[in-house]
Amino acid sequence: MKAAVVIGTGLIGTSVALALSRRGVTVYLNDINGSAALTAEAMGAGICRLPDETVDLAVLAVPPGKTSEVLAAAQRAGLALAYTDVASVKARPYSELDSAGADRSRYIGGHPLVGAEGSGPIAGRGDLFEGRPWVLTPSAHSNQDVLNRVLELVWLCSSVPVVMDSRDHDSAVALTSHAPHILASLMAGRLAEATEQSLRICGQGLRNAVRTAGGSPKLWGEILEANAGAVADVLDAYATDLAQAIKALRALGNANPEECKQAADLLDEILTRGNRGLIRVAPGSGQHDLARVPAIIPDQPGALAELFAAVRDAGMNIEDVRIKHSSDRPRGFVELFVARASAVKLSRLLDDAGWFAPASPPPAVEPGPGA
Amino acid sequence: MKAAVVIGTGLIGTSVALALSRRGVTVYLNDINGSAALTAEAMGAGICRLPDETVDLAVLAVPPGKTSEVLAAAQRAGLALAYTDVASVKARPYSELDSAGADRSRYIGGHPLVGAEGSGPIAGRGDLFEGRPWVLTPSAHSNQDVLNRVLELVWLCSSVPVVMDSRDHDSAVALTSHAPHILASLMAGRLAEATEQSLRICGQGLRNAVRTAGGSPKLWGEILEANAGAVADVLDAYATDLAQAIKALRALGNANPEECKQAADLLDEILTRGNRGLIRVAPGSGQHDLARVPAIIPDQPGALAELFAAVRDAGMNIEDVRIKHSSDRPRGFVELFVARASAVKLSRLLDDAGWFAPASPPPAVEPGPGA
Repeated sequence: MKAAVVIGTGLIGTSVALALSRRGVTVYLNDINGSAALTAEAMGAGICRLPDETVDLAVLAVPPGKTSEVLAAAQRAGLALAYTDVASVKARPYSELDSAGADRSRYIGGHPLVGAEGSGPIAGRGDLFEGRPWVLTPSAHSNQDVLNRVLELVWLCSSVPVVMDSRDHDSAVALTSHAPHILASLMAGRLAEATEQSLRICGQGLRNAVRTAGGSPKLWGEILEANAGAVADVLDAYATDLAQAIKALRALGNANPEECKQAADLLDEILTRGNRGLIRVAPGSGQHDLARVPAIIPDQPGALAELFAAVRDAGMNIEDVRIKHSSDRPRGFVELFVARASAVKLSRLLDDAGWFAPASPPPAVEPGPGA
Repeated sequence: MKAAVVIGTGLIGTSVALALSRRGVTVYLNDINGSAALTAEAMGAGICRLPDETVDLAVLAVPPGKTSEVLAAAQRAGLALAYTDVASVKARPYSELDSAGADRSRYIGGHPLVGAEGSGPIAGRGDLFEGRPWVLTPSAHSNQDVLNRVLELVWLCSSVPVVMDSRDHDSAVALTSHAPHILASLMAGRLAEATEQSLRICGQGLRNAVRTAGGSPKLWGEILEANAGAVADVLDAYATDLAQAIKALRALGNANPEECKQAADLLDEILTRGNRGLIRVAPGSGQHDLARVPAIIPDQPGALAELFAAVRDAGMNIEDVRIKHSSDRPRGFVELFVARASAVKLSRLLDDAGWFAPASPPPAVEPGPGA
């Protein structure tokens, strides 16, 4: 790829331009907000004008509701041989291409999955996409040459290409991004009216949970509108779950012990299912998939503390410990729970330190005890 | 304070014991799980037995449903002159004290607000409470001597004491912690059944939003049960908001332009209110409360890039930039948007660098443009 145009120099567009520029691609920048384009230019993202000749690729970094219109205009101007975009909604914008007069064969939808901080060109970073998935949604109309140009863009940005059907993509982001955005906004919205005293005691957990609610209402309004059906479907499912949870909480104070028990069981099921879901997106959360490594501790003061220190110094995290309760001081038989990946390393360390540990692979998985 | 007992050596109890021990207090440790208490002892949190004489303070670090029962037993044993606990629910456990046979005058409820990672004694840290709020909920029955002993505990843990009514506390944590925990569990729960492909494209934002769902179902079940009414009230409000949001999303595809407009406005209101709420708990999020600092850039290549670098080197974050679009290259008049706290520092830096900036305080607040 020799030259590219980036249309829309917000956070994502500027980051694409920075990534391409530093790989030696000549990048032309364009934005309806001239100030944003000039800022991107000042950051070294490219040249703030349209190219004189047709370039290899045009990247549209505009809101999803603008994709078809901007694509048609860019194609009429003959800007590039191939076109892609970076919007987080793919199906509806694609369905609008024909009526907008765009050529579907020269376009393949794209969506780099990045968790960006800030907004505008000034927040752009050339390494934003490194190692992140970049979804491509080619259709039956897509041209192979166009696909290869877009794949080269993804490679130049050091991203991992993932090909998906546009509707599957939109359902997936509804579940993993758009619906959670609404829930975060609702949670944060209730804080807008809370008393000062309530907020004084809020913790980091809440901040993390609602941080995404800080996104631009204008941009998010456009995203949610473009994916409204899929998002509403996910939220319907949440609403059903939420109604169940509320019913269970109200029933906990119930005089009928049978109903009370059922409510507690339902609540436990909700919490346990949450554990299971979290582990799928954040492996290593909770006390799951741990390996148990036994050790015999010499009968001398401070031996156990010494063991803990040695394990920590070796860069391992002890997730849990069980000490055999045989006398009034800690000694004797101990079981250490660590991530499975650390188990062999820990066994060796225990051997080297003179604490007995089995030389063979550690015993099978056993979940550690609860909190 | 010379000596204390910590009953319950999980994450919080062990952390209290570690904090007290390193301030020279003799700490006795007790847990129904002897292995947990021995682990806490091995970590240097204290001595794993009950005291021979009555100590200054007993700290109960047990689930909220156990508070009254454990307090009554500890008081019958004459363990301490004063008693407190660290559970995240205060009103219902307090209401159960009388029937459990506990002496309310020697007890004051407490709740250190910490966002802990992990669980069990092994995750304990002596500095866990530093600078965090520690809520105390004295009642009309509370003894002043008891209050002062608990205040000393909070001081020894380097926490900030905050006195609250127990019901106000419980409503506040329902809003800022317990109800968000349920929502995170519901969000994560839906991920438990998602396809591999959906999860492959999930980002860090989702992980942050649902991380709290990793908490122990057993412990959280007890917390939610103890505060069920207040949590259900908050969730009822969410359910109403959620139903509105779903209705708005469904109406966006409506043929009637008036209804469509109303739906878009409602969605914008939800997102904007989310912005406002987030700012209350995480000041500095979003493009709000920014100061505008004007500068005149010398007409030479790279001057703007140099300015950005200088501002960044000075540790300031440029939130937005507006460049006057007067020619085909970036020069001339620029407006920088930075946090109000940085505005005066930035003006000085611009002056020193030879770029003009007003010596007087920066102009009034003006929100920066959207994403």
